[in-house]
Amino acid sequence: MTKSQIKLYYKNVMADVIGDEHGITHNQWVDLEKKVEPLIPLMMKEVVGHQRHPNITPTRYGLLPANEQIVRDVKKHVEELRKGCHNLVVLGIGGSALGNIALQTALNPYMYNLDDKQRHGPRLFVFDNVDPAQFDSFLRWVVESNQLDKTIFNVISKSGQTAETASQLLIVRQMLLDKIGPEGFRRQVIATTDAKKGTLRTLADQAKLRTLEVPDDVGGRFSVLSAVGLFSAAMCGIDIDALLAGARDVHKRVSNETFKDNPAAINAAIHYHFYHRGKKNSVIMPYAYALKDMADWYRQLWAESLGKSTDLEGNQVFIGPTPIKALGATDQHSQVQLYREGPNDKLFTFLQVEILDGESELVIGPAPDGAPELDYLAGKKMSTLLNSEKQATEFALLHDKRPCLTVLFDCVTPYTVGQFIFLFEVTTSFVGALFNINPYDQPAVELGKEATFALMGKEGYEDFAQEIQLKTEIDEDYLV
Amino acid sequence: MTKSQIKLYYKNVMADVIGDEHGITHNQWVDLEKKVEPLIPLMMKEVVGHQRHPNITPTRYGLLPANEQIVRDVKKHVEELRKGCHNLVVLGIGGSALGNIALQTALNPYMYNLDDKQRHGPRLFVFDNVDPAQFDSFLRWVVESNQLDKTIFNVISKSGQTAETASQLLIVRQMLLDKIGPEGFRRQVIATTDAKKGTLRTLADQAKLRTLEVPDDVGGRFSVLSAVGLFSAAMCGIDIDALLAGARDVHKRVSNETFKDNPAAINAAIHYHFYHRGKKNSVIMPYAYALKDMADWYRQLWAESLGKSTDLEGNQVFIGPTPIKALGATDQHSQVQLYREGPNDKLFTFLQVEILDGESELVIGPAPDGAPELDYLAGKKMSTLLNSEKQATEFALLHDKRPCLTVLFDCVTPYTVGQFIFLFEVTTSFVGALFNINPYDQPAVELGKEATFALMGKEGYEDFAQEIQLKTEIDEDYLV
Repeated sequence: MTKSQIKLYYKNVMADVIGDEHGITHNQWVDLEKKVEPLIPLMMKEVVGHQRHPNITPTRYGLLPANEQIVRDVKKHVEELRKGCHNLVVLGIGGSALGNIALQTALNPYMYNLDDKQRHGPRLFVFDNVDPAQFDSFLRWVVESNQLDKTIFNVISKSGQTAETASQLLIVRQMLLDKIGPEGFRRQVIATTDAKKGTLRTLADQAKLRTLEVPDDVGGRFSVLSAVGLFSAAMCGIDIDALLAGARDVHKRVSNETFKDNPAAINAAIHYHFYHRGKKNSVIMPYAYALKDMADWYRQLWAESLGKSTDLEGNQVFIGPTPIKALGATDQHSQVQLYREGPNDKLFTFLQVEILDGESELVIGPAPDGAPELDYLAGKKMSTLLNSEKQATEFALLHDKRPCLTVLFDCVTPYTVGQFIFLFEVTTSFVGALFNINPYDQPAVELGKEATFALMGKEGYEDFAQEIQLKTEIDEDYLV
Repeated sequence: MTKSQIKLYYKNVMADVIGDEHGITHNQWVDLEKKVEPLIPLMMKEVVGHQRHPNITPTRYGLLPANEQIVRDVKKHVEELRKGCHNLVVLGIGGSALGNIALQTALNPYMYNLDDKQRHGPRLFVFDNVDPAQFDSFLRWVVESNQLDKTIFNVISKSGQTAETASQLLIVRQMLLDKIGPEGFRRQVIATTDAKKGTLRTLADQAKLRTLEVPDDVGGRFSVLSAVGLFSAAMCGIDIDALLAGARDVHKRVSNETFKDNPAAINAAIHYHFYHRGKKNSVIMPYAYALKDMADWYRQLWAESLGKSTDLEGNQVFIGPTPIKALGATDQHSQVQLYREGPNDKLFTFLQVEILDGESELVIGPAPDGAPELDYLAGKKMSTLLNSEKQATEFALLHDKRPCLTVLFDCVTPYTVGQFIFLFEVTTSFVGALFNINPYDQPAVELGKEATFALMGKEGYEDFAQEIQLKTEIDEDYLV
């Protein structure tokens, strides 16, 4: 395990680099420091589950402070289930899927599911949608290739009432009962859910399923370092102790009460500052395929935590930066034209990895005789090209006075990924504190859920269903 | 082939639905119609490659008017190469990859690469990055499983000088020469490039590679319906004639000079209108996994075409909506909190599919005895749930006065996908015309390319390299 720390590099948001109109001036920086530093101890309270404001119900971040019992439980189940398991299927959505996907893409090889030699654990499939064509394609494969009793289904839902996950579970349950009976159902399913109450807990206890716990005070989008994210990671051979060690080490760094030594406070201050200067889009752009889905995980963390219509005093604010995921170098040929020449309304966060190579180093071959214009590439490492492209793109953005942050990784390991996750969880809380909003609730998700209940014919929602139909039925006059 | 037309539904952007502050009022609509209708014939000129303004070099859209020779060429190569081909690898980036990926996700099963029974053609891999860990993972698999002579590499680049694609090609070329010799290299590689000039053309002619043509007047992001996108699609069993038929049918509809009957004119007018009312983010949100990567294709089309610093008269405008891809129902548990409660700065475009089921219909199983709260789901189709969620989410967004468009598909087929591609290509041109900018160039991509040359040590760029290093070298004072 490399004991390397990830670092935040923030010079390229400063007025010295991109000018006064778009950058942070010295005086503005001093003001930010004055505002943020006294808040650090208050903001850190939330990280361990204490309250900062009476209108906040705090959340803990995954396993911090470490809950060793949960790690032991995860490892016990992994030990029992891993042998003979060819496929692991996660049924979950939002915070019960995005972290699982992100860990897998970051820490296992690109060809993991396809190449038996590169895979040390079961194939992983995460279904976080209710698309029948997609889900049916998977189920047909698993049934027709007779792998049902070699496939573990990990259903993840704190309540069990999430319509998407519940419907997946009811389909899988029926299929397992039909094909391999109640004992097969019991054997092949493990539920990650509330310790005591809720639909999935009841269902799991009745069917005597294996279970793991979603701790009471850990919110969905902050749960990747709990059993929610750790079980699938450990099943697929990821070192979860190193992940947690990374998170714990960052916990120390973000607890530092001196602004200039606290990466979460600085990161949050910069995001807060630019939001209020009209840069309401926050682009996260990893220059590493491995970190691609970390950007998607961040997208939920940021949007659900910070998109709020009212502040803690109940004033209407309609606040919230829009997170946008991009990928280098790919999106240089898709988004950079807009990023440079479009409105200067974005703050960029690059993720850069010094050692990008995997198992072996990839070196570019010689150019053929007829193409001397490619000689400059010959003999160079592909990783040198990717990192040069990051530097070149940042240079071009700075030329057009666009503010850029970079998170530097030595390499992508469980230890650095654990650091990244925890740093951005804490940053999110800090930005929430600076916005004076509650970063732990998601009240706007409720109406859509209720409307779905109504449209699916749930009892008691008949009038509401009619209201929705009336409001959304197609009016042919507006169809072209 | 279903002869069904896709439709644009636009009632839910109107003031009647979401109020005057955020919706389009009757008078505003009349003004838009007056502005846009006279421009339709002018705008349509560009679609077939004519000039609207002296500062524009027009582009054609793929194969329209149909170039039958290219289709014949594609089919001839497919016929020769398909047999015995287990893997097709596309090496390309931007417009030479996004359309290929989008067609594959839309029109082939989710488990295509993994399930031999569901696959009728080679596995498809598209590499549009220069990540060494990712590329090496693939190359190790293909070499160690002895599939090199069953793998076709389709390298796509108009010039052949794109650093990413060139470096991939030089790696693959060296590997093929080492493992199966010059004849193997010739046999396993097909180049899609300029008919006459450029690095890749020279290289292909020297090595006597098979080639397909990128027509002269078709720009990268408008090229999916040329040999660029059609070859990989046809190799993987997609009906390219139906794709093109869809595009041709929409060509007729968007040529209609009456505003109210022209879906591209209406779509463009709405996007233009909201941009100037401060809704600068354009969210595209398919409610179908199959259309997920169409959103990514749209992202390039929109950003590169419409993100421009200067208008046609040379005035500085820094214009351009920011395209954002989302996916229903998944992102209800990630982005909808922000979409409802954050700033009202987004225009939403949903893609909705009436018949979502694939090979078989997926029906939700009965709820177990202990969970009567799930009874409402039992016996319902999963597709009913997904479409109800779309309706519910739109209802919730309208409740918060957010403007919503929907593109309605009967089902996802080559014919409807061809329509969608062409409708959005023309819409993009129309928005460009309304913005009074050139939608066919991408001048801002150049600086990053030059900077990459410099950092990679290309001859003649030594001074520039020094300038970049100076500007971007890490300053430890800003590292935390």
